[in-house]
Amino acid sequence: MTNENIQVRLAARPVGLPTDKNWDIRREPVPQAEDGQFVAEVLYVSLDPAMRGWMNDVKSYIAPVEIDAVMRAGGVARIRESRLAGYDVGEHVFCMTGVQQFCVSDGKDVQKVSPDVAPLPTFLGVLGMTGLTAYFGILDVGAIKAGETVVVSGAAGAVGSVVGQIAGIHDCRVVGIAGGKQKCDYLVDDLGFDAAIDYKSEDLRKALKEHCPKGVDVFFDNVGGDALNTVLPMLRMHGRVVICGAISQYNNTGPVTGPSNYMSLLVSRARMEGFVVFDYAKRYPEAIAAMGGWLADGRLKSQEQIEEGIENFPAVLLKLFDGGNFGKLILKNTAAF
Amino acid sequence: MTNENIQVRLAARPVGLPTDKNWDIRREPVPQAEDGQFVAEVLYVSLDPAMRGWMNDVKSYIAPVEIDAVMRAGGVARIRESRLAGYDVGEHVFCMTGVQQFCVSDGKDVQKVSPDVAPLPTFLGVLGMTGLTAYFGILDVGAIKAGETVVVSGAAGAVGSVVGQIAGIHDCRVVGIAGGKQKCDYLVDDLGFDAAIDYKSEDLRKALKEHCPKGVDVFFDNVGGDALNTVLPMLRMHGRVVICGAISQYNNTGPVTGPSNYMSLLVSRARMEGFVVFDYAKRYPEAIAAMGGWLADGRLKSQEQIEEGIENFPAVLLKLFDGGNFGKLILKNTAAF
Repeated sequence: MTNENIQVRLAARPVGLPTDKNWDIRREPVPQAEDGQFVAEVLYVSLDPAMRGWMNDVKSYIAPVEIDAVMRAGGVARIRESRLAGYDVGEHVFCMTGVQQFCVSDGKDVQKVSPDVAPLPTFLGVLGMTGLTAYFGILDVGAIKAGETVVVSGAAGAVGSVVGQIAGIHDCRVVGIAGGKQKCDYLVDDLGFDAAIDYKSEDLRKALKEHCPKGVDVFFDNVGGDALNTVLPMLRMHGRVVICGAISQYNNTGPVTGPSNYMSLLVSRARMEGFVVFDYAKRYPEAIAAMGGWLADGRLKSQEQIEEGIENFPAVLLKLFDGGNFGKLILKNTAAF
Repeated sequence: MTNENIQVRLAARPVGLPTDKNWDIRREPVPQAEDGQFVAEVLYVSLDPAMRGWMNDVKSYIAPVEIDAVMRAGGVARIRESRLAGYDVGEHVFCMTGVQQFCVSDGKDVQKVSPDVAPLPTFLGVLGMTGLTAYFGILDVGAIKAGETVVVSGAAGAVGSVVGQIAGIHDCRVVGIAGGKQKCDYLVDDLGFDAAIDYKSEDLRKALKEHCPKGVDVFFDNVGGDALNTVLPMLRMHGRVVICGAISQYNNTGPVTGPSNYMSLLVSRARMEGFVVFDYAKRYPEAIAAMGGWLADGRLKSQEQIEEGIENFPAVLLKLFDGGNFGKLILKNTAAF
């Protein structure tokens, strides 16, 4: 059993895309549990576009990661030492593990998970924050109704691929926007999207007109920039734009590109609304039950891309921003297996 | 009695600010009523920022004004000849008169008005489309609640000044943004705004922080551009942005400036929503009854700026865009008095 805890700490705030200079790979001793704590070995860490925002020293829905702190991340871990009642060695938990091999917890905001219910990475994907974000975003904020046309950007990403499937389950016409033929084929052939648009090779506006002949009722936006601006004038009356992310803008060194077509909201009596999944915490059980049911009956598919080695976090994170990931991006702590 | 009908017709679509080249001042014979029609002499014409949009050949919530057509406008007119049952000579009506001295109508979308109820220009202001826009925009779309902080841009304009007063009547803290000391003093001293910010001489961001120490619950935006972008990061949780207009952008020859801070909608779980007053037509009586009551008990003030001469429309319209108007801008057909 290792006595080393590899950690990825934030060394400096990035300007634009993060580079190696922003990270400090530290080797610390494995922590020991004090009274009221447990120590767990991290198995899988969730990599999310939101991480880029957490690296900035900017007021947001959550505090920035401090310089020299372990990078914030959700993860699945296995308890290896416990001095906290109710948490036994060998049990699995989801919590904010951070990007490291071992974490200490006092049990706050910890959820137990079981490999008997679903493969552990699923608790970072469809049955985790990713799935919850998709569920509440498209059903509560998007308020989709059967027969409506739903467009999703970043459709082959972790949240986007689930959003599209949930919309399909609710009998919407679903059109995904993604980068590259492979992703587009996957959306249509494997996930049942009605159409997918390759923004890298197609004229987005023309393709949207073709695939959304009646216009767009709901746009679930993970990307911002051109995607958002192009969809706005295509909104149907009382359309909804769900603002989940703006990954095209996260590494800008200049100002964010605002949607110059926002006045289409007036023409279409439409609304654009942001949300943060944590606000729905009381309803997580409802969502997990629904998603679990759809997983079980095969209507919902979970796609994870699992990369290896905590120390590889800096390079793997970049896959979120260069189009290199497919579904939910997860880092496996290979040393724990 | 004149036999001439001075009309202002759209000669060419403007690029940027309209100039004399965009207008054709035509002198036509006074029309005669056919069966099922009346002819009315226009007394007052409403001038609105939306007119700029109607001049563009762009799909919007209403069709563009055709080239060589009489410019679209709402107006108050007095019937001078009638071959339509129920409409008698001498009665006053509100309808889409167009910018001209005489109009013909078949009674469609005509509302009778009476100088015994209120001075006739009021039916273009507080008791007209302007007031209805303010009423439904701030109460239905903005969904204001007592104690909330409401910010209004274009606050000394026709809609803005009514929005602020309605918010005050509903016990909100009301902060107006306007151009120049005279307008700002008027908002606070005469209309009862809690504060007014002169965007021409003050730092908007600093002034908003000072006057909205708890942040902004509802932003009613008539202006767009910097005003919108500056308010977005100040929204409180579950804030609302009501998109009524974007007068700062209407004469752009380049693209509209989109709000680069739109991701604040996510941070604040806020929504930005557009509306068009026509959608509330069934509820106009409710609004007019409420506004009439507030007018009668002195809680709501009507401010009109009345300019003279139908043929002066091209020059007077520009006052909407150079900050030269104060309250509701109205053109009086002097020849009719």
